[in-house]
Amino acid sequence: MPIRTIVTELLEIEHPVLLAPMAGVAGGALAAAVSNAGGLGIIGGGYGDRDWLTRELAAAGNARVGVGFIGWSLDRQPELLDLALEHAPRALFLSFGTFRQYADKIARSPAKMIVQVQSVAQACEAVADGAEIVVAQGTEAGGHGSSRATLPLVPALVDAIGDVPVIAAGGIADGRGLAAALMLGASAVLCGTAFFASREALSHPNAKQAAVTGSGDNTQRSSVFDIARGIDWPAQWNLRTLRNRYSEQWVGDTETLRQQGAQEKMRYAQAAEAGDTDVAAVIVGEGVDMVRSSEPAAEIVGRIVSDAERLLGNANRFLIPTGSSSGGTLRARPGGPP
Amino acid sequence: MPIRTIVTELLEIEHPVLLAPMAGVAGGALAAAVSNAGGLGIIGGGYGDRDWLTRELAAAGNARVGVGFIGWSLDRQPELLDLALEHAPRALFLSFGTFRQYADKIARSPAKMIVQVQSVAQACEAVADGAEIVVAQGTEAGGHGSSRATLPLVPALVDAIGDVPVIAAGGIADGRGLAAALMLGASAVLCGTAFFASREALSHPNAKQAAVTGSGDNTQRSSVFDIARGIDWPAQWNLRTLRNRYSEQWVGDTETLRQQGAQEKMRYAQAAEAGDTDVAAVIVGEGVDMVRSSEPAAEIVGRIVSDAERLLGNANRFLIPTGSSSGGTLRARPGGPP
Repeated sequence: MPIRTIVTELLEIEHPVLLAPMAGVAGGALAAAVSNAGGLGIIGGGYGDRDWLTRELAAAGNARVGVGFIGWSLDRQPELLDLALEHAPRALFLSFGTFRQYADKIARSPAKMIVQVQSVAQACEAVADGAEIVVAQGTEAGGHGSSRATLPLVPALVDAIGDVPVIAAGGIADGRGLAAALMLGASAVLCGTAFFASREALSHPNAKQAAVTGSGDNTQRSSVFDIARGIDWPAQWNLRTLRNRYSEQWVGDTETLRQQGAQEKMRYAQAAEAGDTDVAAVIVGEGVDMVRSSEPAAEIVGRIVSDAERLLGNANRFLIPTGSSSGGTLRARPGGPP
Repeated sequence: MPIRTIVTELLEIEHPVLLAPMAGVAGGALAAAVSNAGGLGIIGGGYGDRDWLTRELAAAGNARVGVGFIGWSLDRQPELLDLALEHAPRALFLSFGTFRQYADKIARSPAKMIVQVQSVAQACEAVADGAEIVVAQGTEAGGHGSSRATLPLVPALVDAIGDVPVIAAGGIADGRGLAAALMLGASAVLCGTAFFASREALSHPNAKQAAVTGSGDNTQRSSVFDIARGIDWPAQWNLRTLRNRYSEQWVGDTETLRQQGAQEKMRYAQAAEAGDTDVAAVIVGEGVDMVRSSEPAAEIVGRIVSDAERLLGNANRFLIPTGSSSGGTLRARPGGPP
């Protein structure tokens, strides 16, 4: 039986699973695959490459997807919002900025306005600015984010913003995470790392392999890779990646790295192009422990949902009438109930 | 109907709720209150004050409680383990160290050996060293801890250590957190912040008030307060607290603070004694958003459990037979199902 929530109703989707709009990873093919599997795929608008976005919107074909933007970058090229709206996206997904200035335009379109935040204070601001759905992103998420963690952030947001639905993001990569998020009061989950190594992702094959073999113990937030790429991110957000030789070299001395400027930017771009994961960032979060192979996105959506359905359908197995003795194991097993 | 898991069976307790052994906060009265309410209270052995521990073990009276130790501190006074074992605790709770050297002695006692870890690698080591139960502590926890977050850490540990039960710690302060933890594969939760402001806690009344009014947006991990107190914590663990005037002053300049040495130690001790929360740390985690009053510990245990029971008992409300229309709201409400 499918999982229905206020978010599946609002977005008119079958499953409460959204693809995180990972820059350079979540292109049209991956977004379409997630939407076609019943979730909501969201193309990562990234840093404002109009040609890239045009191409990936086309690559999504007839699938109804969303488009994600980085706020401070969109503010420099607000016309990209019009480009996205021309393609009748199901949702605009806005992170890392303030968005009141876009709310009217989005409200006049069929697209829902989803705003991702990293604190209770930001959530209240997002709702005041017109957000129809708020994403609570925890620090365990891959990519850019901040310091609060998903598990306590989700219920705090649910209590703070009342009737505006909350989506949980950060550290959720399987059905256990989806079932847990619903218990916390979320109405859907947003997954990036779970899809980073998927067949349709634009990640370099070496990066996908690094994700498949990587450990959540080995991720780290830092500004090293943003400095290396020459992207001037506001200091309140930094990037979670796997640690690698490059981050180990520079994490304690970002000022020197900054001074290397153009030279490191070129070196970094070459490494990213070549899939040299000793240098280029593998941008995944702590949920990478649960990524064990490179699969079609539809299989990932299907497994997350079916495992969560089993867990929710059997959640009352923990409840034992007083006086009765328990039979068998009482622990949840990976991927489903005992 | 009570929630039964492998941990409630192993520890012979009614509810899967454990009190975190907060140093200087979780004394005998609080531990006894949690145990008498059906959970497991654990006295915080702290930094090895034998007289304090003797007094608090006595204060627990006939309640069956556990005792917690900080590993690197216990290694300096291993005889405190014997003191604890003489009181027939239900469990020894060991954190921040390695514990193979104590496993035989604990195994010969009726006490269970619970080891708290902050990574998958540490969990595997703890099991090899003899841990009977492993606590996955996320970075959102108050007090000492590390960098991984609870939501992805719990399922990663469940997958890594197989049949050894996992308890979730960090960010869990209500029934939503307990229900979520069970979905993730945990068999119980460990709560500190939820009890920090409880009537029986040894926290200063001003610190309790700061917790009640504090926001999870306003906590931070740092070493400032350990340096101020003159406690030489290993660098891999630091302390989550509310931010205050003192942490804002020193967090960017811990070397100068260290040089102030004895002078700051005296100043800090006086502030802690006086309940000056502009200086002294209020040691709570991100779950502080869910702490709204100072209540008897038994009421906190009762609410966590009854809210989780309702959520688990109604978890299948998210599952809608295909084709049927949903009635009413589909979101979990604070403290219970819709």
